[in-house]
Amino acid sequence: MRIGIIGTGVVGRTLATKLVSLGHEVALGSRTKDNAAALAWVDQAGAKGRTGTFEEAADFGELIINATSGTVALKALRAAGAEQLAGKVLIDVSNPLVFSPTGELSLDPVNTDSVGEQIQREFPEARVVKALNTVNTAVMVEPRRVPGSHNLFIAGNDPEAKAQVTAVLEQFGWPAAAVLDLGGIEAARSTEMLMPFWLRLMGHFGHADFNYAIMKAE
Amino acid sequence: MRIGIIGTGVVGRTLATKLVSLGHEVALGSRTKDNAAALAWVDQAGAKGRTGTFEEAADFGELIINATSGTVALKALRAAGAEQLAGKVLIDVSNPLVFSPTGELSLDPVNTDSVGEQIQREFPEARVVKALNTVNTAVMVEPRRVPGSHNLFIAGNDPEAKAQVTAVLEQFGWPAAAVLDLGGIEAARSTEMLMPFWLRLMGHFGHADFNYAIMKAE
Repeated sequence: MRIGIIGTGVVGRTLATKLVSLGHEVALGSRTKDNAAALAWVDQAGAKGRTGTFEEAADFGELIINATSGTVALKALRAAGAEQLAGKVLIDVSNPLVFSPTGELSLDPVNTDSVGEQIQREFPEARVVKALNTVNTAVMVEPRRVPGSHNLFIAGNDPEAKAQVTAVLEQFGWPAAAVLDLGGIEAARSTEMLMPFWLRLMGHFGHADFNYAIMKAE
Repeated sequence: MRIGIIGTGVVGRTLATKLVSLGHEVALGSRTKDNAAALAWVDQAGAKGRTGTFEEAADFGELIINATSGTVALKALRAAGAEQLAGKVLIDVSNPLVFSPTGELSLDPVNTDSVGEQIQREFPEARVVKALNTVNTAVMVEPRRVPGSHNLFIAGNDPEAKAQVTAVLEQFGWPAAAVLDLGGIEAARSTEMLMPFWLRLMGHFGHADFNYAIMKAE
């Protein structure tokens, strides 16, 4: 599959490298063509990796991944262009973290809105699926870093898009049964609001190789 | 131990019944002395149960549990009285859920404040510990309703108070190792912000007998 990744940070590059290793063709998109991280990535990515602007990456991809920070996601996706997103599955991996000058964490949006919904509203022809935003980047593409069975959560309005995203997650090593469907894209609120808890757990454990397993009565 | 419970809803009554069954003396406090739920509870609680006003319950307890809704917690605890709370461990079980007329969920406070912190600020001599607000009431007092190992989370500024609360949780059936200490009372933000996720999971499973197990690399 051809995949366009919006954002060249550690999340975007990690997903890009994994997807190339799985045999996909990946375009890593950045704001400007001379993005150093993207150029360094493409140098070691092999024949299946390329770089380009947000718009070029989105145009290239049959599947799009938003790997920008949640607070700049809309701006990056506007640069990618509504036409380049229309009809495509768009995986939103982002969280809207805002840190105050003293390091205090907030989410913006929070409560009655989410980045997932913002993207779906602004690009109604994209098929937005919130996914992967509840684990560390390394765990996203290598779930066995965390022992035992543990879960991912998806949200989106298009069942077929969610099935496609689940298939990608299976390629990453997540059993389909580990992926819990929380409902429409408005459920992205609930997983974005896990971030403060996730950061507290990281502080408690001193590392990021952990995840949620939802235990339940049958 | 003598325990004062603030709030006669299902959370307060369930905790009260469990604590009486464990041999504690419990005062179930309500806004008015003629609260029907409290009177019905005391009728079946046996010799170790009593009812009273918020103030009487708080005065009675060596340990206090706030089992009101998070949005009215401060008001109820003001009625209980700062003097009755001073020096005591105060377990805050609440979540600040606000539902709009259309049923849309918000938390208030959220992000940079929490009910746990509000209580600790308003009653600086109380030793507030946020606990138990991440599971259904039935699971609080009977963790084996959910199979396997799963976790609770505590937050508070007073290590000794957290140790005392952990001992109570052990009496409820939670292994001490299942109780993760997330830090100072400001960590209450992170567990209160789990509620939207918890409600989504309840929708997904169709019941409330579930809980979070945090899986991690060693």
